[in-house]
Amino acid sequence: MSVKIITLTSDFGLKDPYAAEMKAAILGICPQAVIVDVTHMVEKFNMREGAFVLASATPYFPDGSIHVAVVDPLVGTQRRPIIVETKRGFFVGPDNGVLMLAAEAQGVVRAREITSRKLMLSNISGTFHGRDVFAPAAAHLAEGVSPEEFGPQITDPVIPQFTKVMHSRDAVSGEVLHIDDFGNIVTNIPSKDLAGFRGSMVQVDLPSQTQQMKVLGTYADARLHELLVLVGSHGYAEIALNQGNAAERVPAKAGDKVTLTRA
Amino acid sequence: MSVKIITLTSDFGLKDPYAAEMKAAILGICPQAVIVDVTHMVEKFNMREGAFVLASATPYFPDGSIHVAVVDPLVGTQRRPIIVETKRGFFVGPDNGVLMLAAEAQGVVRAREITSRKLMLSNISGTFHGRDVFAPAAAHLAEGVSPEEFGPQITDPVIPQFTKVMHSRDAVSGEVLHIDDFGNIVTNIPSKDLAGFRGSMVQVDLPSQTQQMKVLGTYADARLHELLVLVGSHGYAEIALNQGNAAERVPAKAGDKVTLTRA
Amino acid sequence: MSVKIITLTSDFGLKDPYAAEMKAAILGICPQAVIVDVTHMVEKFNMREGAFVLASATPYFPDGSIHVAVVDPLVGTQRRPIIVETKRGFFVGPDNGVLMLAAEAQGVVRAREITSRKLMLSNISGTFHGRDVFAPAAAHLAEGVSPEEFGPQITDPVIPQFTKVMHSRDAVSGEVLHIDDFGNIVTNIPSKDLAGFRGSMVQVDLPSQTQQMKVLGTYADARLHELLVLVGSHGYAEIALNQGNAAERVPAKAGDKVTLTRA
Repeated sequence: MSVKIITLTSDFGLKDPYAAEMKAAILGICPQAVIVDVTHMVEKFNMREGAFVLASATPYFPDGSIHVAVVDPLVGTQRRPIIVETKRGFFVGPDNGVLMLAAEAQGVVRAREITSRKLMLSNISGTFHGRDVFAPAAAHLAEGVSPEEFGPQITDPVIPQFTKVMHSRDAVSGEVLHIDDFGNIVTNIPSKDLAGFRGSMVQVDLPSQTQQMKVLGTYADARLHELLVLVGSHGYAEIALNQGNAAERVPAKAGDKVTLTRA
Repeated sequence: MSVKIITLTSDFGLKDPYAAEMKAAILGICPQAVIVDVTHMVEKFNMREGAFVLASATPYFPDGSIHVAVVDPLVGTQRRPIIVETKRGFFVGPDNGVLMLAAEAQGVVRAREITSRKLMLSNISGTFHGRDVFAPAAAHLAEGVSPEEFGPQITDPVIPQFTKVMHSRDAVSGEVLHIDDFGNIVTNIPSKDLAGFRGSMVQVDLPSQTQQMKVLGTYADARLHELLVLVGSHGYAEIALNQGNAAERVPAKAGDKVTLTRA
Repeated sequence: MSVKIITLTSDFGLKDPYAAEMKAAILGICPQAVIVDVTHMVEKFNMREGAFVLASATPYFPDGSIHVAVVDPLVGTQRRPIIVETKRGFFVGPDNGVLMLAAEAQGVVRAREITSRKLMLSNISGTFHGRDVFAPAAAHLAEGVSPEEFGPQITDPVIPQFTKVMHSRDAVSGEVLHIDDFGNIVTNIPSKDLAGFRGSMVQVDLPSQTQQMKVLGTYADARLHELLVLVGSHGYAEIALNQGNAAERVPAKAGDKVTLTRA
């Protein structure tokens, strides 16, 4: 039997047993699953950050991987539990957009609502679908249950809306997606829109302040503790500080508008 | 060979290599073990919180799972290392109560002191029985070593004492067990004692303050950022805030007495 | 096929998907790998702490284990990516010293620079060699690729320099390596240099203050909330507080000079 990878992304944090309960549910159904935590430290209820983190990690996983993401402020309401089948694997979670940034990057084949009670845990709590609905669905998929057994196809999964990236010859603007643990300020400006600025000095406008910095290839191309703009490992422009924490120097938060203008 | 699940629960935190050293000890003895972290962020030396977290997670693991819990302020003293055999699996850890809430829920068959030096690591430190005694014991159990080879049966394992839940027609009282990472205030009042209050307004008395709130089915049954009481995913009453952090609104800590009275 | 253990140590923190991306890269090449996190909470860019944590954990892993450590402030510069072959396994990471404390303890056989592009991911970012170079190298080693296929032997890997431990009949001095999550102050003074002080009162000099405390066998040999010196589970002298946090009582940080003098 080939290896079945199931990844977990959530805002559960690390002090509670919630991620472990999902793993227990998975292993009870698919004992051979290889479970990988993407992170459980998405900001609470921040579906957009969850979507970004998931979309950053999933390109590196082998074909056939099954990705579960649970950032789910509306658990217990009518928001649908869904499975999204892509050209490279499956995504399982709430229908609030958290799955779709990553799923669309893989090419969506179709999406389904999970309605079959016999593919959920026998007792469904009103508060923890990660354990009771999503983890069992992922495990049944890993065991080879066919997607159509979970429920009917849907055509209108919620798509997350990020600020559209705008670019002209001398400027490009987008939004801050995420501040990483190193203090790098990750934007939604893709690599290709930064190409024309490589080696140039740019003015970076954020709500908190305006700074000039150079667009460089890697952290160490800047002087020690100097700000720079570079393409991060996920393929998006980020504002960084060589051997330091950019977000301590230039305050920013997810959702901030950011503009780079040739200086 | 069937999958052998070993779970780990501790107060080690996540910056040190201590959990990894336990995993190394396990894999050296039982290379096929599937190791699942429940959490390593139990409050330091808080045996009662460890007991609660372990008892929350273990019901979801398959039969035959082996659960190791290390919240062990008295390591190096005469407190006994024990194995508790239940109807569903094994628990391994210090004899200070941390195992017994979860073990009793599974039906205890018998408990043993671990005395056999040949089933421990060859060098036993005075400070880290998790790695030197408990992890090897779990791994040997997973490899099929019979419980009686570890040491003599004991009949007096330490049982943790929580405040007894008291209930009348119009009130129920217990204690706070745990504040989870979402700020939900988890009590020891079981689902059945909350049943009569479903849909009612109750007065919640905590040492820090008194608040009125409704007993509802799920977070989203409350208005946005409204307090509510519900049965959490572990089967106990919890005080929560829809899409917010209840413990920031109503300060509480593990051990606090809590009373719900029909308002 | 025997189990192939790959361990990961880094300063990535736990909120980002970086460790997961390394795991994805590994599983794409070696689906059977058993991946164990040592820690991802090394202080950012603190190569010396990374070296200590790695050296603490690795003795407990089985022969044949492959250890990846990424504390890599100079990623993107000319610092070399290396593989170190020891008598017990392999170490993979940047050539900045982070690997060598642990590797030397196992007996270094030889070190090589990783130069073969076909054993890296197809797109190499300038900022994340953990995912693009080190994780694939570890996975290929686990799959049985011969070390010489990665690149040429080198004879001058960077060796980390810690303060030399100085001892006389009545005193021993070294440096603080690490403050663990319990607040234990771990030094680089080995067990053997503490042997003569067992049971004695010593004066402990740190930059922040001077304190007298006893050299004891385990935490519980001290009175409740009393400071003590003992040999920690890693085999080095540490300053601890029975059932409490020594670093809150005696402020200290990695790199501080520490001297114990018979009182």
